[in-house]
Amino acid sequence: MENQEEDYLPSLITATPFEGRQLAIKLARKSIGAIQPDAGIRQQLRAAYASDTAQLIASAQVVAVEFQTIAQANNYWKTKD
Amino acid sequence: MENQEEDYLPSLITATPFEGRQLAIKLARKSIGAIQPDAGIRQQLRAAYASDTAQLIASAQVVAVEFQTIAQANNYWKTKD
Amino acid sequence: MENQEEDYLPSLITATPFEGRQLAIKLARKSIGAIQPDAGIRQQLRAAYASDTAQLIASAQVVAVEFQTIAQANNYWKTKD
Amino acid sequence: MENQEEDYLPSLITATPFEGRQLAIKLARKSIGAIQPDAGIRQQLRAAYASDTAQLIASAQVVAVEFQTIAQANNYWKTKD
Amino acid sequence: MENQEEDYLPSLITATPFEGRQLAIKLARKSIGAIQPDAGIRQQLRAAYASDTAQLIASAQVVAVEFQTIAQANNYWKTKD
Amino acid sequence: MENQEEDYLPSLITATPFEGRQLAIKLARKSIGAIQPDAGIRQQLRAAYASDTAQLIASAQVVAVEFQTIAQANNYWKTKD
Repeated sequence: MENQEEDYLPSLITATPFEGRQLAIKLARKSIGAIQPDAGIRQQLRAAYASDTAQLIASAQVVAVEFQTIAQANNYWKTKD
Repeated sequence: MENQEEDYLPSLITATPFEGRQLAIKLARKSIGAIQPDAGIRQQLRAAYASDTAQLIASAQVVAVEFQTIAQANNYWKTKD
Repeated sequence: MENQEEDYLPSLITATPFEGRQLAIKLARKSIGAIQPDAGIRQQLRAAYASDTAQLIASAQVVAVEFQTIAQANNYWKTKD
Repeated sequence: MENQEEDYLPSLITATPFEGRQLAIKLARKSIGAIQPDAGIRQQLRAAYASDTAQLIASAQVVAVEFQTIAQANNYWKTKD
Repeated sequence: MENQEEDYLPSLITATPFEGRQLAIKLARKSIGAIQPDAGIRQQLRAAYASDTAQLIASAQVVAVEFQTIAQANNYWKTKD
Repeated sequence: MENQEEDYLPSLITATPFEGRQLAIKLARKSIGAIQPDAGIRQQLRAAYASDTAQLIASAQVVAVEFQTIAQANNYWKTKD
């Protein structure tokens, strides 16, 4: 493995589409964590975006792209419908 | 399931393309809700983006990506045409 | 159907690529309409973005993603060339 | 056809990848034209974005998405290599 | 060919993923050049974005989309691994 | 090879999804490095975006697109589950 970060992504496969949504949100957050590793700074920054609609919308855009990848990986959970 | 949030996405399959649009808008909104879980704050924030064209356009971008995923999941509703 | 909105998307299939472009623009506009349902407000807002190049470019981005979905749905209109 | 606009997109198929680039740029411009149909206003606006690097980059983003669609439509011009 | 511009894209096929990255960066730059053809202006503008992190990130976004297209065209260079 | 830059991308194939995430972050950073090759300037600029939530979110967007490409290249690591 490239460096000793915690492996937070053993697989892209989830049991349900909803768990796929939760994984997409997790991946978006982990990207922010990888770019700004200081949890204290991230906590301070939360107030800055959590009530800034432009940043909430931009965050939803990241989730949408991550979810598309996860949905493709799970064949859109079709086999499990 | 990861946490006790309401499972708002049992399936990506919808009866029609229009229901796919409505699901895409729902998913975009649910992402915002997951990032800013306080419904009161979200309600206050609505005025900030609902008449800000740049944010309306950015929201439409999120819907477009979510819809692409849903359309792929439904094979573009081709079998039902 | 989820709610009593007008079903503006009976199908993603169009006769020509050009009609696919027009549908993409329509879908982008319908997203804005779903997020800001007040037609009067939307009309007032039009001046704000229609001569703002950054917002015109952002709108073109939405159209490009919607068009990609429509083009995929129509198999890039290859069978009709 | 939906309205009497000029059909500027008879096909997504181009002879070469370079013509695909040119078509992508054309489609991005046509989207702007569809949203702001007044050519006079568009001409005035050109100065606003043509030396604004953020808007030039955003325009390149639109071209990249349009080009991806065109490249998929042409099977990445692989058969013609 | 549409106009007498230099054909800078004879093919999307590259020998390696790294050359695919270089081509993606080249395509992003060529889009800027097509929208702002004046090399002198582009040179002056370079300082504006080359130390503006928001614009560097937006440029990386364009490269990511262009690279995705190139990677798809080369079947992710799998056959050459 | 186009120029004498270090070949930082011998392959898109990674052993695990997590290594795919790390590669996506690396590719996003390499794009910034290719556009702003001066490491000193990049180091100075780090403070500007590392605590700017809008830019952290925009960076996460780049990672999401790069990761989608890498996940497609690795067939979503399905065979290795």
